[in-house]
Amino acid sequence: MENKQDKLVKSITGRDEDFAQWYTDVCRKAELMDYTQAKGFIIYRPYGYAIWENIQKYLDNRFKKSGHENVYMPLVIPESLFMKEAEHVKGFAPETAIITIGGKEELAERLIIRPTSEVLFCEHYAKIVSSYRDLPKKYNQWCSVVRWEKTTRPFLRGSEFLWQEGHTIHATETEAREEVLGMLDIYNELGRDLLAIPFILGKKTDKEKFAGAEETYTIEALMHDGKALQSGTTHYFGTGFAKAFNINFQDKDGVVKPVYQTSWGLSTRLIGAIIMVHGDDSGLVLPPYAAPIQAIIIPIQASKPGVMENALALYKALDTLGIRVKIDDSDKTPGWKFSEYEMKGVPLRIEIGPRDLETGDCIIVKRIDNSKEKVKISELPMIIEDLLASIHRQMYDKALANVAANIRPAYTYEEFKNIIENQPGYVKMMWCGNVECENKIKEDTTATSRCMPFVQERLGEVCPVCGRKAEKEVLFAKAY
Amino acid sequence: MENKQDKLVKSITGRDEDFAQWYTDVCRKAELMDYTQAKGFIIYRPYGYAIWENIQKYLDNRFKKSGHENVYMPLVIPESLFMKEAEHVKGFAPETAIITIGGKEELAERLIIRPTSEVLFCEHYAKIVSSYRDLPKKYNQWCSVVRWEKTTRPFLRGSEFLWQEGHTIHATETEAREEVLGMLDIYNELGRDLLAIPFILGKKTDKEKFAGAEETYTIEALMHDGKALQSGTTHYFGTGFAKAFNINFQDKDGVVKPVYQTSWGLSTRLIGAIIMVHGDDSGLVLPPYAAPIQAIIIPIQASKPGVMENALALYKALDTLGIRVKIDDSDKTPGWKFSEYEMKGVPLRIEIGPRDLETGDCIIVKRIDNSKEKVKISELPMIIEDLLASIHRQMYDKALANVAANIRPAYTYEEFKNIIENQPGYVKMMWCGNVECENKIKEDTTATSRCMPFVQERLGEVCPVCGRKAEKEVLFAKAY
Repeated sequence: MENKQDKLVKSITGRDEDFAQWYTDVCRKAELMDYTQAKGFIIYRPYGYAIWENIQKYLDNRFKKSGHENVYMPLVIPESLFMKEAEHVKGFAPETAIITIGGKEELAERLIIRPTSEVLFCEHYAKIVSSYRDLPKKYNQWCSVVRWEKTTRPFLRGSEFLWQEGHTIHATETEAREEVLGMLDIYNELGRDLLAIPFILGKKTDKEKFAGAEETYTIEALMHDGKALQSGTTHYFGTGFAKAFNINFQDKDGVVKPVYQTSWGLSTRLIGAIIMVHGDDSGLVLPPYAAPIQAIIIPIQASKPGVMENALALYKALDTLGIRVKIDDSDKTPGWKFSEYEMKGVPLRIEIGPRDLETGDCIIVKRIDNSKEKVKISELPMIIEDLLASIHRQMYDKALANVAANIRPAYTYEEFKNIIENQPGYVKMMWCGNVECENKIKEDTTATSRCMPFVQERLGEVCPVCGRKAEKEVLFAKAY
Repeated sequence: MENKQDKLVKSITGRDEDFAQWYTDVCRKAELMDYTQAKGFIIYRPYGYAIWENIQKYLDNRFKKSGHENVYMPLVIPESLFMKEAEHVKGFAPETAIITIGGKEELAERLIIRPTSEVLFCEHYAKIVSSYRDLPKKYNQWCSVVRWEKTTRPFLRGSEFLWQEGHTIHATETEAREEVLGMLDIYNELGRDLLAIPFILGKKTDKEKFAGAEETYTIEALMHDGKALQSGTTHYFGTGFAKAFNINFQDKDGVVKPVYQTSWGLSTRLIGAIIMVHGDDSGLVLPPYAAPIQAIIIPIQASKPGVMENALALYKALDTLGIRVKIDDSDKTPGWKFSEYEMKGVPLRIEIGPRDLETGDCIIVKRIDNSKEKVKISELPMIIEDLLASIHRQMYDKALANVAANIRPAYTYEEFKNIIENQPGYVKMMWCGNVECENKIKEDTTATSRCMPFVQERLGEVCPVCGRKAEKEVLFAKAY
């Protein structure tokens, strides 16, 4: 737990010394979150929540432009409703939190805190849909969900986390399938445009798919320590839920049919991804378009003539452009401020001091590589957008190079085990399609199948684990 | 519960025939909400949720501009933490929902679903604040809260509702008091600028104030049936919570002191206020700046030459201006569409048909008074913003006139009882400051003190109930 002393000491564990401890240090010292007395329930502090708000803004805009509407479903699911779809129950029942008391009285029926809201959407859709004219329904909600986890880590695995969950129903299978892949594209573009994280897209194996789904698609990211992080998923349900919940419609041909259904979700887990993809020994490194503060202006010797005037004028000029800029004119030392904003991963630091002012200059320092440059203050507003864009590209390219360098093929199972134990990242290998082989791999190595990538290679004709005919190329990795 | 047949029948109960039934009809037929199997837990359907999003957008912008930051605190409060501030517990404990089971096991400590988050903020603030340099902290969160209510009504009183809760701490009493009144002003301006609802501002009596607060301030609105609705409150806590939770800071003078604290909240209850202030026998009437759809374009005889072309061109022109406009080109009849969008309270209907097209005209119909006007299609984009502004003013003025006409003074208790039983609205009366008189009034009439308005009149020298010296003018009313 953070205590008041912590605030004075900004040093953190080395990233390559103890990655897990480094991660926790960054979460706390960058003031992204705080713990509470309830295990696995964290506080999203302003700086962490603001990153989520930037993700929300991007996605909400994309969702609405593609015809989705926001709704809010209840926090609770009556137990009998929750039990209606068998596979779904099997997947989620073990990790539910349950309200048994309300208004000082034992409840007649126990209420499950939503771990996900499929059944609530299903019950509602069954009531409001009767004709092809009512379709499609493309709903999304922003909320928190609760899943009782034994091991919890900030952002990565919590008893409660924030997310969006989209739930759509369609008249045809084609349209539903387009939705599932279309939303995966939007998730992928979030990574490309906002987070500077390259994802690998693919389909989950049956073992790894969502409870109740026919098919699950995923965006997978690679962390600095070589582990994979499932960063968002979209699900094709076919008519499974529709049949369990009687979501039927009369089609144009007069025939009553069940709807085709999808769901898709993405969570505050992405904040963990940002930390673990981009962070370094000095703390967080934020991609500019997700950063709550894109540029921090630090006056040096603020009492000297012209320093504060120039700092404030620049602040106003950048703010007017829509840049998320702050000025730190507190009485802390410049050195203290430098390490504070390094820890917080602010992409661009702008130092304004009396010496450089003589020539109308300031110093800009990029967080990504600590590179310093002298720039005319008057020119900065004209180049700042390009600067941020180039930082974004630099971060994306670096992350992409890291992924490319850490996908290794395995042609035999011995080779697979050797790579997975000794090298970071993904191992690509052919697979027979049987869950026994996935189970064996997990047992032997703790690695799991991350996905069957959309872009498939043919690495061989047999499954190296069992020797049966190879069906698919699969990416395996140790994962969060 | 809505069933599929309902959708064909858009008639509702008359507003003055049975106001409560009319209200429920509007909630459902305008598709603002739906019930679920869990009592008091409603679904905010897209059309209802979009109103809330417009409220959120306005407030979030105002909050951020006045230096507030968003955070997210956990859904749950450990019971021992919840019990720390005595008055607060007394107020909220009877209506809590409690998680006793997590991950199939009985919990060692029961978890209260937040009915409000004061104690969570207090615990966090105590950890992160140590110096005057850390102050103020001005945090807000958007979330849902749960209060176990015996009688529930959509938006007005629910087991779960959506709201924002602001929680701030300050170094001085003056600053905290400014915060409490400043946020009340922002709430008031939301009414004036967005909802077209005039509020009466004042201070709550001790009996009606928030559990744990030293002072509570309120915005009160008057519904069409003459009942009042508390629409938002701000609270001054002094140092009460700070002392219970040890939120202390070292001041500039070196002395360690407790912080001064505030909280303030406003909820989806306002959707109920919009319905009951502005609605009529044809359904909802939405103020333009809160309306999800500000203008609906309805093509008449859409297959005739030029109709769809002109409708689409106008749609594009208005959309480009940032007007929230939709076009309904479904195969339903124009009459069906008219009553649909009347029910949904869309401020402006634009009819484009072959006859008026001959002269380049369209028909615009204002929802507020059903007035029709012929307007040149080419001119509509130039006048639409003024049109919406004038509708907003008309709605605000009408609501204001209704408030003004329904505040009546009482100089004796007999007069008070007579008015409160037979007339709608507020009764203003002097009051001695003693809770016994408030209790007697409530027992005799069910009316409650709504507030001591900021603008005080001196209606007399004694309290008409008990004959003791009069302290304050109070507004009484029957209330939701």
